[in-house]
Amino acid sequence: MIKILLDAFGGDNAPSATIEGAVAALNKDKDIKLLLTGKQDTIEKELAKYRYDEQRVEIINLPDVIAMDDIATEAIKRRQSSLAGAYWKLKNEDDISAFVTAGSTGAAIAGGQLILGRIRGVKRAALCPAIPNIRGGVTLLCDCGANAECKPVMLCQFALLASAYAKVGFGIKNPKVGLLNNGTEAHKGDTLRLETFKYLSKMNGINFIGNVEGRDIMLGDCDVVVADGFSGNIALKSMEGCGKLALGLLKEEIKSGVRAKIGYVFMKKALKNLYARIDFDKYGGALLLGLKKVVVKSHGSSKAAAIANSIAQAAAICRGGLVPQIEKSLAGENWDEIIDGDGQ
Amino acid sequence: MIKILLDAFGGDNAPSATIEGAVAALNKDKDIKLLLTGKQDTIEKELAKYRYDEQRVEIINLPDVIAMDDIATEAIKRRQSSLAGAYWKLKNEDDISAFVTAGSTGAAIAGGQLILGRIRGVKRAALCPAIPNIRGGVTLLCDCGANAECKPVMLCQFALLASAYAKVGFGIKNPKVGLLNNGTEAHKGDTLRLETFKYLSKMNGINFIGNVEGRDIMLGDCDVVVADGFSGNIALKSMEGCGKLALGLLKEEIKSGVRAKIGYVFMKKALKNLYARIDFDKYGGALLLGLKKVVVKSHGSSKAAAIANSIAQAAAICRGGLVPQIEKSLAGENWDEIIDGDGQ
Repeated sequence: MIKILLDAFGGDNAPSATIEGAVAALNKDKDIKLLLTGKQDTIEKELAKYRYDEQRVEIINLPDVIAMDDIATEAIKRRQSSLAGAYWKLKNEDDISAFVTAGSTGAAIAGGQLILGRIRGVKRAALCPAIPNIRGGVTLLCDCGANAECKPVMLCQFALLASAYAKVGFGIKNPKVGLLNNGTEAHKGDTLRLETFKYLSKMNGINFIGNVEGRDIMLGDCDVVVADGFSGNIALKSMEGCGKLALGLLKEEIKSGVRAKIGYVFMKKALKNLYARIDFDKYGGALLLGLKKVVVKSHGSSKAAAIANSIAQAAAICRGGLVPQIEKSLAGENWDEIIDGDGQ
Repeated sequence: MIKILLDAFGGDNAPSATIEGAVAALNKDKDIKLLLTGKQDTIEKELAKYRYDEQRVEIINLPDVIAMDDIATEAIKRRQSSLAGAYWKLKNEDDISAFVTAGSTGAAIAGGQLILGRIRGVKRAALCPAIPNIRGGVTLLCDCGANAECKPVMLCQFALLASAYAKVGFGIKNPKVGLLNNGTEAHKGDTLRLETFKYLSKMNGINFIGNVEGRDIMLGDCDVVVADGFSGNIALKSMEGCGKLALGLLKEEIKSGVRAKIGYVFMKKALKNLYARIDFDKYGGALLLGLKKVVVKSHGSSKAAAIANSIAQAAAICRGGLVPQIEKSLAGENWDEIIDGDGQ
């Protein structure tokens, strides 16, 4: 039985969507137990709407809620909040394996680093979403916003963390790693990219294929794309914006005339497939990699299905043994060389 | 009569696409004259396929061709190349107003800075494409790859250069300027963003609306997005990749079954509209802003229509008086304050 904490009050649609998602996850996977954090009475009321195995649900009364725009490092001091309180429980109780939240990204990152803590040897935790790609699989983009300013050693570790996730979470045996850059040639990029390229080429445990461009995240032949949190965030949100625009315009054009409406009736299934194939939430949330336990940050706008996916994802990753895999990978590299160079 | 140089041998589809595009532009706008650079005999052979006003075409024999992967700063020393030779002509002949090339981006930037030269006071030239947005207009993204490493003063100037382009090229009276960042709050971003935010807020001639995210390039309510060339490039290519994926999957789904194929017959026009609305080439190429004359960098994969659009765009921008507009804007700012601060 895998025990997973869920921030029942995190996200724009909480707590109704989070509870609905929790119940869906419980009913699908009989080998998980969920610990729901938040206002006890509200959670009880929401739960009463559904049928589920009550033995596998526990409510932890944490009535304070961190808002999306609260200052993260201050907010996580509030131990009675559904997010920070969950982190303390995750830290202190050995039999709890994972935490899922759709709450403030900043608070999730700050709580992960400051309350739960990082795996020994990891310089910084990184936010790593799985992005649908043209091969019908995913590309892991790491980091996507946890660290706006990075050193080469951090990017090298992101490569390793995301490779471990690709293996454990998606069964990719020898994940191909690309460095996000403004061109594919080896001499491209700023000082950070040039240094990182040098070290990535020498690392033992990763399959580095060289520089990749923004378009390669969705189109290219690579499983992991390594980025500093600033440009990774720009890439992720630019893709989200473009995807939303394309789908929005498609809807608009369909509504624009009788012929198009008739066409839509016939194409409905094809368009549904299309939507599913570029659905960023299909694979659950972004992983917070490098922490001592599994933490999944679901999108702030997550609906019940996305929450259920994030819980299923957390369970799968715990079963796959992500943390031991990362520890093993870390031990196989010569970090002193990178740190004693100009990597640090 | 506006005289425009065209690099007839620049781009993946040159010279057939460039010559076809040149003829289309000539036939559409009777008030332009084109100077075609490249191998004279090949250009003559291509031109012989079409009917056009021969009085408004001149061929300049420059038989050397710069390849996409030549090292830019070396390549532009080759004065007999269709690209570098064109830049020398642009520099030396007062009556030539603009240059259009679909050749190597690196060489186009290097030639612009080192042969043609910048407008007095401009620190660096910037690459600025017009990206289709949800409002049915464009968002100008500046810089998109000319400068991988930037100082705050450069970003402040990009804001001003692109605002001038928005006014002259798209008739936007008081263009809204956003700073590309990993969040919209004022405290977001790395040191470069924090410094730049401070200076942008104080500038006279721009309408700064604050930080914007990657998604705002296509979805947001802003006309100009300012970025360093590294993250601007990541944003642009990420959007291109996502757009290509969405359209590619749509085509695939349409082919996937009989019902979808029938639907397609009815939706053909709507889908064509959709394609046109997210066509990155519709507005011509990217402008190389900050140079002494108008330079348009068309996409390397430009077909005839894109080349014709780029030529029309160059003519429109010359007529609108981009260079004097930039000179006027530059004179209205207190650059010493930015440079004496930590902007430089």
